[in-house]
Amino acid sequence: MVTHMGLVGLGKMGANMRERLRRAGIEVTGFDPRPEVSDVESLAALVDALPGPRRVVWVMVPAGDPTRDVLAELAGLLGEGDVVVEGGNSHYAEDQARAAELAERGVGYVDVGVSGGVWGLENGYGLMCGGDDDDVAELMPVFDALRPEGPREEGFVHAGPVGAGHYAKMVHNGIEYGLMQAYAEGYELLAAKKGLITDVHGTMRAWQRGTVVRSWLLDLMVRALEHDPWFEAIDDWVEDSGEGRWTVDEAIDNAVPLPVISAALFARFSSRQPESPAMKSVAALRQQFGGHAVRPSAE
Amino acid sequence: MVTHMGLVGLGKMGANMRERLRRAGIEVTGFDPRPEVSDVESLAALVDALPGPRRVVWVMVPAGDPTRDVLAELAGLLGEGDVVVEGGNSHYAEDQARAAELAERGVGYVDVGVSGGVWGLENGYGLMCGGDDDDVAELMPVFDALRPEGPREEGFVHAGPVGAGHYAKMVHNGIEYGLMQAYAEGYELLAAKKGLITDVHGTMRAWQRGTVVRSWLLDLMVRALEHDPWFEAIDDWVEDSGEGRWTVDEAIDNAVPLPVISAALFARFSSRQPESPAMKSVAALRQQFGGHAVRPSAE
Amino acid sequence: MVTHMGLVGLGKMGANMRERLRRAGIEVTGFDPRPEVSDVESLAALVDALPGPRRVVWVMVPAGDPTRDVLAELAGLLGEGDVVVEGGNSHYAEDQARAAELAERGVGYVDVGVSGGVWGLENGYGLMCGGDDDDVAELMPVFDALRPEGPREEGFVHAGPVGAGHYAKMVHNGIEYGLMQAYAEGYELLAAKKGLITDVHGTMRAWQRGTVVRSWLLDLMVRALEHDPWFEAIDDWVEDSGEGRWTVDEAIDNAVPLPVISAALFARFSSRQPESPAMKSVAALRQQFGGHAVRPSAE
Amino acid sequence: MVTHMGLVGLGKMGANMRERLRRAGIEVTGFDPRPEVSDVESLAALVDALPGPRRVVWVMVPAGDPTRDVLAELAGLLGEGDVVVEGGNSHYAEDQARAAELAERGVGYVDVGVSGGVWGLENGYGLMCGGDDDDVAELMPVFDALRPEGPREEGFVHAGPVGAGHYAKMVHNGIEYGLMQAYAEGYELLAAKKGLITDVHGTMRAWQRGTVVRSWLLDLMVRALEHDPWFEAIDDWVEDSGEGRWTVDEAIDNAVPLPVISAALFARFSSRQPESPAMKSVAALRQQFGGHAVRPSAE
Repeated sequence: MVTHMGLVGLGKMGANMRERLRRAGIEVTGFDPRPEVSDVESLAALVDALPGPRRVVWVMVPAGDPTRDVLAELAGLLGEGDVVVEGGNSHYAEDQARAAELAERGVGYVDVGVSGGVWGLENGYGLMCGGDDDDVAELMPVFDALRPEGPREEGFVHAGPVGAGHYAKMVHNGIEYGLMQAYAEGYELLAAKKGLITDVHGTMRAWQRGTVVRSWLLDLMVRALEHDPWFEAIDDWVEDSGEGRWTVDEAIDNAVPLPVISAALFARFSSRQPESPAMKSVAALRQQFGGHAVRPSAE
Repeated sequence: MVTHMGLVGLGKMGANMRERLRRAGIEVTGFDPRPEVSDVESLAALVDALPGPRRVVWVMVPAGDPTRDVLAELAGLLGEGDVVVEGGNSHYAEDQARAAELAERGVGYVDVGVSGGVWGLENGYGLMCGGDDDDVAELMPVFDALRPEGPREEGFVHAGPVGAGHYAKMVHNGIEYGLMQAYAEGYELLAAKKGLITDVHGTMRAWQRGTVVRSWLLDLMVRALEHDPWFEAIDDWVEDSGEGRWTVDEAIDNAVPLPVISAALFARFSSRQPESPAMKSVAALRQQFGGHAVRPSAE
Repeated sequence: MVTHMGLVGLGKMGANMRERLRRAGIEVTGFDPRPEVSDVESLAALVDALPGPRRVVWVMVPAGDPTRDVLAELAGLLGEGDVVVEGGNSHYAEDQARAAELAERGVGYVDVGVSGGVWGLENGYGLMCGGDDDDVAELMPVFDALRPEGPREEGFVHAGPVGAGHYAKMVHNGIEYGLMQAYAEGYELLAAKKGLITDVHGTMRAWQRGTVVRSWLLDLMVRALEHDPWFEAIDDWVEDSGEGRWTVDEAIDNAVPLPVISAALFARFSSRQPESPAMKSVAALRQQFGGHAVRPSAE
Repeated sequence: MVTHMGLVGLGKMGANMRERLRRAGIEVTGFDPRPEVSDVESLAALVDALPGPRRVVWVMVPAGDPTRDVLAELAGLLGEGDVVVEGGNSHYAEDQARAAELAERGVGYVDVGVSGGVWGLENGYGLMCGGDDDDVAELMPVFDALRPEGPREEGFVHAGPVGAGHYAKMVHNGIEYGLMQAYAEGYELLAAKKGLITDVHGTMRAWQRGTVVRSWLLDLMVRALEHDPWFEAIDDWVEDSGEGRWTVDEAIDNAVPLPVISAALFARFSSRQPESPAMKSVAALRQQFGGHAVRPSAE
């Protein structure tokens, strides 16, 4: 069982995870290109610092090229019986090829979706993993240290073979898009009736106990409203992280209707458009057939 | 059969209709509060000018109070055997009460949905009407003068009892919202690939013959693109006229799923928001759980 | 302050509320047309049983005619200083007229949205109310007895003047539609990959702690999956209660875009259609232009 | 300029195109694996039959493997100055690689989106192409023979470099999904008021002239309703051809909001589900919190 592990990537997520693991008594050697946060000077040094057999290296770097590069380098450093954990937001379809490559060298691969954001250090992280039973079993002390207090099965799941962890995390994030948009639409409806709903913040705050819509996201919404009840200091510009897109792509591949999650994604796209080519064309069309007034672009 | 009729309301639609009717040999006495366009000085004078029996007065004024006021005044001026035609964009649910009131005085009521916009004078108007068979029969010369050339049943329908004309027009306009948004989304997708689609205007122009998407709205889109291929002179701000809203309300009352038409309506609402309270709250939420960057409102 | 109140309507919600109030030491006289659950024989007897001044009668009967009838009868029984609480799912727009009528007799009116369903007896009910400050102040012992444990402001709000309680509850239910559909779409995406996600129930169960999507609705989803992990015993037929419709209607009246909540509503409409006229017509269209195969209706 | 060309694939589309080309005086040698429709015995024989220089082979086989196989075989048969036309519904992203491969042998590549379905033989086909100017110029006699009567630019476009033709066709088909769904929703709304709209077929028929919604798809809808005004003989089961999916995928890649076209696609997915896992889970959730009735699956 793991008592000393490697952790690659000490950004917002990784650094907090190192701290939570250490508090739980697990020795962690962390590597990050930024020397001021790194425990060792290189990936090779990190691997050297780990006790065998079955060295464990958790990779927690941005999805895409950064993850690919680290995994490629690790493949050359690890060997029979070692295990790589891919904890970033990778697309699940990449996991199987990666696992196959590492398997040629006898290295195991476990993909983990990690949820909880900046709150994870204190609350613990929700964990979904995919991989072989024995690799997952080996990692249980790590998972137990990271996951929230309470019954293990309420904060951790071995969801299936390699890829299942990232798939579950992708779906989790898709749901998250839908939930956030539902609260957002409700907020706008409350805010639209200022004469009637004299306390929007208080109304959403009162939903935190006893109601059907109570949730952690609602708690966060209430926190946000406390500081700025009309969101005056914040722009209506919303990034999307990639996993919402993957969720809709996946739905299309599987012919699964996804009206709510896709609408939430499109609302984010719209929020970032300085102007909408589509709506310009609708305005132009109305002018054509009805002589309807349009607003010239200078306005 | 009608050879001389009254027409109340000589705005963009009414004035064109008067002209088209006169070209067809129907005598028209028009009334409008603006003396420079009106043929008579008052509604009473208009009614006096019409020959009986079965005087016909077509009302073509804005929906809501203006229509209500004219109908109320007409009720006091008309009598047994006369017919009122309500050609504005009234809600169909108002028609039955109006018809019942007029019926007490022996006055008939026919509701007509009129489509065609500013092009109607030359092309003719698409007409959908609701009412009693004998009232509609009486009006056929008027309908034939207004409708487009070609088979009567391709530009005119007696869709059902009182209210059917406005209901059909409401649905027509709801469909129109969906069609326009579909072309608009397609336009945006073409415009999003400027390196590949080097001629967006030309591409849509080429859809006018032979393709599945050819339509009059497409012809208008091509016209609009001719003058301004990137819609640079036009703002992405789109009004909605009320009938799109009624269509969605009606769908809700009848438990009819309406994903496309409602999405088209909501896109118009969004287009008019200087900023979206909903998307501000999503941005705030993301900041809460993930420490994600937001754009301060000043930006 | 209230120590003895009347409660009209002892159905699933009312009976549980009576029980919770009594456990909190508030005397409750309940009336219901079904003698086996009623404490008195009539509404008049209920009113007579209450101590003055400022008698309090909470009405908890189905929205629409039943509520209207009870309020009309109460208007004749109550007088100066008494307070009626309307706790049903009435439309907020009805509240003001009702309050005005009762105000003529000196009777106060407070509208309350009550959330929590069958779990309210044990967990307490989330409460949102609208009305005058002094009426609400009078009722605070009742609200405190019904609301969940914990800080008052997390389970109760005085959201604004008369109507604000029902408006807030309507928006709450609209959000609920969106949240449920988001989880539902996520569930379907998990279930669509049975080879990869070998434990759908376990995956959603693991989201209950630490994740961004944790919520009470998720807890209920996990409970439901425990008994029937593929929902084999349940039909895909979903009722809607009216408040989802009102939420979308309200959005339309206020030009608020509501893509997610409306999509959730339409999904319910679709779920109840034995067959979709719209999709039949799309199938027919495809056959027309492409000679595409259709499935004859008998299939 | 082309006077004799090859055509591979003599299915519903290809056979009609051969016929239309021949009527226009272009000699066509067609190949199809089914000897009863083929003019030659093999692809090699087809190529041999063509006069040089600048032999032209139009490929009109199903997208995916069939197209890939034919192109691979053609690459070995053609040479310097020849031109391949890919007229199937391929994904535009595949075009550039194909063109590059053929370019190594001096073979040109033009991708063409062909619209018009079974009506193309008589009406002509709407054509959108991508490729080099000189390849396109060479092909103009072919395009002119296939496109509809009327101004060339209303039925044909050289939309951009290789890939532009298939991209334009993809967007065309995405729009088509949205248009069809808009008419379908309107049809359902008319059909939902049978007491008021006594003639649904007649109402849509009357939209064919003068109205804003007139289009070829509307004409087809009217044709379909003529034979079966309530679509009693047709199932509400709608296939999707792949290009609708690509359109939504493309929108996601480019952060283009696509609410209407995506809703139309999802409606097709839903139409094919014997039961909806998502809506089962919503039903289960409602039962959990509200004790709401569900319909057991057997029903």
